[in-house]
Amino acid sequence: MAGRRMISPAPEPPFLAACRRRQVPHTPIWIMRQAGRYLPEYRQVRSQAEFATLLRRPELAAEVTLQPLRRFPLDAAILFSDIMTPLQGMGVDLSFEPGPVVKEPIRTDAAIDGLAQLVPERDVPFVLESVRLVRAGLPSGVPLIGFAGGPFTLFCYLVCGRPSKEFGTARSFLYASPESAERLLARLADAMAAYLRAQAAAGAQALMLFESWAGLLAPREFERFALGAVRRTVAALQGIGVPLIYYVNQGSALMECVAGLDVDVIGVDWRAPLGVLRRKLGPGKAVQGNLDPAALFASPQDLRRHAGRVLDEAGSAPGHIFNLGHGIWPETDPDAVARLVDYVHEATAR
Amino acid sequence: MAGRRMISPAPEPPFLAACRRRQVPHTPIWIMRQAGRYLPEYRQVRSQAEFATLLRRPELAAEVTLQPLRRFPLDAAILFSDIMTPLQGMGVDLSFEPGPVVKEPIRTDAAIDGLAQLVPERDVPFVLESVRLVRAGLPSGVPLIGFAGGPFTLFCYLVCGRPSKEFGTARSFLYASPESAERLLARLADAMAAYLRAQAAAGAQALMLFESWAGLLAPREFERFALGAVRRTVAALQGIGVPLIYYVNQGSALMECVAGLDVDVIGVDWRAPLGVLRRKLGPGKAVQGNLDPAALFASPQDLRRHAGRVLDEAGSAPGHIFNLGHGIWPETDPDAVARLVDYVHEATAR
Repeated sequence: MAGRRMISPAPEPPFLAACRRRQVPHTPIWIMRQAGRYLPEYRQVRSQAEFATLLRRPELAAEVTLQPLRRFPLDAAILFSDIMTPLQGMGVDLSFEPGPVVKEPIRTDAAIDGLAQLVPERDVPFVLESVRLVRAGLPSGVPLIGFAGGPFTLFCYLVCGRPSKEFGTARSFLYASPESAERLLARLADAMAAYLRAQAAAGAQALMLFESWAGLLAPREFERFALGAVRRTVAALQGIGVPLIYYVNQGSALMECVAGLDVDVIGVDWRAPLGVLRRKLGPGKAVQGNLDPAALFASPQDLRRHAGRVLDEAGSAPGHIFNLGHGIWPETDPDAVARLVDYVHEATAR
Repeated sequence: MAGRRMISPAPEPPFLAACRRRQVPHTPIWIMRQAGRYLPEYRQVRSQAEFATLLRRPELAAEVTLQPLRRFPLDAAILFSDIMTPLQGMGVDLSFEPGPVVKEPIRTDAAIDGLAQLVPERDVPFVLESVRLVRAGLPSGVPLIGFAGGPFTLFCYLVCGRPSKEFGTARSFLYASPESAERLLARLADAMAAYLRAQAAAGAQALMLFESWAGLLAPREFERFALGAVRRTVAALQGIGVPLIYYVNQGSALMECVAGLDVDVIGVDWRAPLGVLRRKLGPGKAVQGNLDPAALFASPQDLRRHAGRVLDEAGSAPGHIFNLGHGIWPETDPDAVARLVDYVHEATAR
């Protein structure tokens, strides 16, 4: 306005700029499961509180979310939570042993129809309070990522009842009862849309869908069931104003399928070079990844070499967020993470 | 010779013809783990003998190898054995609980050098006797496949000590101690070459390497470690005169890497369409696969549709052996297998 001093807006944080495929001062980096067991300070908190307790107490969830940011100059925070949390809000009786165990697996239309509708403010207020607490504790240049499980990944746990190497009961359910499977996936897709929308309203600055198990599917079944449900979630989030990220583990052979998905970023595992994946995804997608979590066990010199290859493969086009291809392993030395973050920042400084 | 009646040779069995990319009267089919728990007659034998006992008693191993051939008109038999069996012959203390558990995991050069050299005739004579018994019991049109584990897959079990979802200890060993990893892999590659050669000498008419876990690797590590060891095994088998098959689970994103391998057939999982995989492998390879094991839980009509798609994707060029993309699940209805075998034969009869 005339007569008033113009205040230049704060620069866009590198993580958000990369999500939108804009130029960045350096390649941003964060680490899947960066708030977790490889950190002694996390184990210290966990020694005094069960995992399930951590999830439901906002001051504890916020504390462990912020821990890795105090150690490393990471470019984003991710809410400490679990993909199964909103299902508890839908009436699913769940425990962690330590993987999620569903007391009554869902395999009939009656059970599917018996799932309660998720109203996040009513059913999981502690998650939204955690989002607000984290935002209050984060510097303005470090955005907070909210997240949910991919509908098919949640479907795997609900149908099988517990973690499984192959999730055979869930996968055979798709073939034996495809209409019931779609019915359950639609319920989950709608619930995750509401859940992510509530996290954004509470302050999450980007939203990520974690698809841990859809990579077990053949392309046709991935397209029909897993991606069909994700499309439903994403359609319900259009216009939300924060970047959307879809991470699909074991998805290297499925990139042609996800290229058409209306999200900003595709998160990928370590099983294909980023250059190949970017060519399949096309110029309209940013990518997030994809160092093998095992590479953090290499010597410092070798780690730089492995990380450098990921940067080389990512190329010079905007829209790369450095990350591991999967969650960091509990046995990882935190010093290796410190070296990795510094290396990525130094090697890409413009 | 002049004056003697010419005896026309028996026609080449369809399975062997397909391995060599020759014309076949119908697309041959066999099923990974076709001798196994989904068959009541197998469970009957197992109710009277431990798994470890079955492996070491040729008359029992031969019996369960032949069981599925009595039920279904399959085009090949595969020896009932376990990929860990030759490691016991190398002095590894092993038990099945029910997955293989190595009493003293191998993680040092001293432990690697302490592995005995495998002399199959001395160390695992019962396997070779099983091969001879099966051959005696099989009709001449049904060839017997001998097999071994891929060196990297064996490495995973030896380094980790027990089955694992991620085989993290083995994968981090590759990064932390790459030279020691190559040393162990070379030992395993040589042992598997000797093991496969002995099976062929005993009567196996094709040889298959099962690579269950190399699909966990990034392409560079797959190339250097897993494929490097397989190349060593394959080189030692040149001129052996029977087709070689390399099956790599979770390998859909690795096809460019294996295209150059000097084997006849690449076995693939269900995670990419066969047409895409054949294009990547080129005309010099036959392919084996790749129906999702979960598809056997579909209705009879849907199962035909799913199997028909695999046949469509395989195309009309010679060199397709129908199979599942992974081992058949214990919960599978044997009648679904019967329907699948008949359908593949009928749909492809020339």
